[in-house]
Amino acid sequence: MGQHVFDEAIALQRTQGDEQGSRWQGATHPAYWNMVGPFGGYSAALMLQAVLDDPLRQGTPVSLTLTYAAPIREGEFTVVTQRVSATRSTQHWSIQLLQGDAVVVNAIALLAVRRPVWRANEYVMPTVPAADAVPRHTRGPDSVAWVHRYAFHPVRGGFDALERRERHDDSTTEQWVRDEPPRALDFASLTSICDVFFPRIFLPRGGFVPAGTVSLTIHYHADEAALASAGSQHLLAVARGGNYSGGFFDQEGKIWAPDGTLLAATQQMVWYKE
Amino acid sequence: MGQHVFDEAIALQRTQGDEQGSRWQGATHPAYWNMVGPFGGYSAALMLQAVLDDPLRQGTPVSLTLTYAAPIREGEFTVVTQRVSATRSTQHWSIQLLQGDAVVVNAIALLAVRRPVWRANEYVMPTVPAADAVPRHTRGPDSVAWVHRYAFHPVRGGFDALERRERHDDSTTEQWVRDEPPRALDFASLTSICDVFFPRIFLPRGGFVPAGTVSLTIHYHADEAALASAGSQHLLAVARGGNYSGGFFDQEGKIWAPDGTLLAATQQMVWYKE
Repeated sequence: MGQHVFDEAIALQRTQGDEQGSRWQGATHPAYWNMVGPFGGYSAALMLQAVLDDPLRQGTPVSLTLTYAAPIREGEFTVVTQRVSATRSTQHWSIQLLQGDAVVVNAIALLAVRRPVWRANEYVMPTVPAADAVPRHTRGPDSVAWVHRYAFHPVRGGFDALERRERHDDSTTEQWVRDEPPRALDFASLTSICDVFFPRIFLPRGGFVPAGTVSLTIHYHADEAALASAGSQHLLAVARGGNYSGGFFDQEGKIWAPDGTLLAATQQMVWYKE
Repeated sequence: MGQHVFDEAIALQRTQGDEQGSRWQGATHPAYWNMVGPFGGYSAALMLQAVLDDPLRQGTPVSLTLTYAAPIREGEFTVVTQRVSATRSTQHWSIQLLQGDAVVVNAIALLAVRRPVWRANEYVMPTVPAADAVPRHTRGPDSVAWVHRYAFHPVRGGFDALERRERHDDSTTEQWVRDEPPRALDFASLTSICDVFFPRIFLPRGGFVPAGTVSLTIHYHADEAALASAGSQHLLAVARGGNYSGGFFDQEGKIWAPDGTLLAATQQMVWYKE
């Protein structure tokens, strides 16, 4: 079996490195293309993967925040990973994606060694039918490339409402999602899945509005065992919008394994035009 | 009337600057001291204020994320503000707080020019009694310094439950809060108020547990007009915890003006010991 297209798309070449960090070369991939640049989840994933592949790396991700300055142009880019601080159990990283001299994505990440301690969850996973009990959403051939890289089974809200151009005061959507073709979950693919939600503003406005993520934060709750247990199963992705004002709104999402384990929580600020 | 102690505490001296950014000198202030370092809201506020005072600055904050590598030691520190990217309407900043050569806080921020466009809010401000209808929480003289810099009027959950050492499955607290003495709200003080919530884990565990914020994100919804309108009134601060596992948990908060305007939403990842 060949390499999964996701691994091909996020592959980076380490061209330089020392005890402060590394430089990496990569290139955009048509399979994860969005409208005017790559899918934002893809760029978040490859920037995290650069840290995970850095020889200095210890621990697993606790948080990642990216701000997107401009669309990544088709072609080559450089990623710079810099370990700015470290303790026995945590690492603080700065990560930048550059094209030419321009910083296109600016990011920081926190990695840490997790420990088996007291656990609890105040969030409640929605009670929903299993993925295979819900029809898969069919995408038209004219859809942007990246949406074909995921299998979506919408449970509540979402695509149908959009197609009917209904306005919804509550922008909550619940959907099962996994990589297409299936791929065992890792931190990179979980990162990408944290950005599969279309801009919430489409729902209260009842259709397409020019909008784009400007800031994305992911809080990781999964450890390696939780990723392994989720494997290539569908994950429940729940999203809702918040406050829309001044040309920016926030939206938040949660990614659940089918067994009820929370894998990640994510928040965005999204630019919108009108 | 003299300078407010908050302004005194976050004051920085610009020692260097060019078209990339600036270096600033500052020092910790006893009035905002926590247990083993300054209150995290204070360090977030002064790092944002450095960007706001940078001659390169355009626009107002949309998002700020900080990761805390170590407690800031008592005494002097350096803040480095770097404008890494800019468009006509947005600016992307990296901000670091250093002591000696060590990066103690690593941060990024996004600023933008806000525009009067369509607005809506899916969040609902809790219906609560007015601040002056609720008794002010009295702090003992042995409390850490920074808590005396705020007036708290708890509405739901919080201090009393902690004092009774009750365990709560729902860690939601609602409280009115303002600077003490009163001070007209600005982006720096709003930033600081985003961190006034004690670690949520105290509520499900029914008491003190070693815990500290490692990553803090703030999404700003207020523009200058909303800040001016809030003035020195009490703000409603609502917080709840999320998922506790592997030694890290998330908590989120919202800061509301009394007129129902959402001023900021914030999320943290918090380290806990046991």
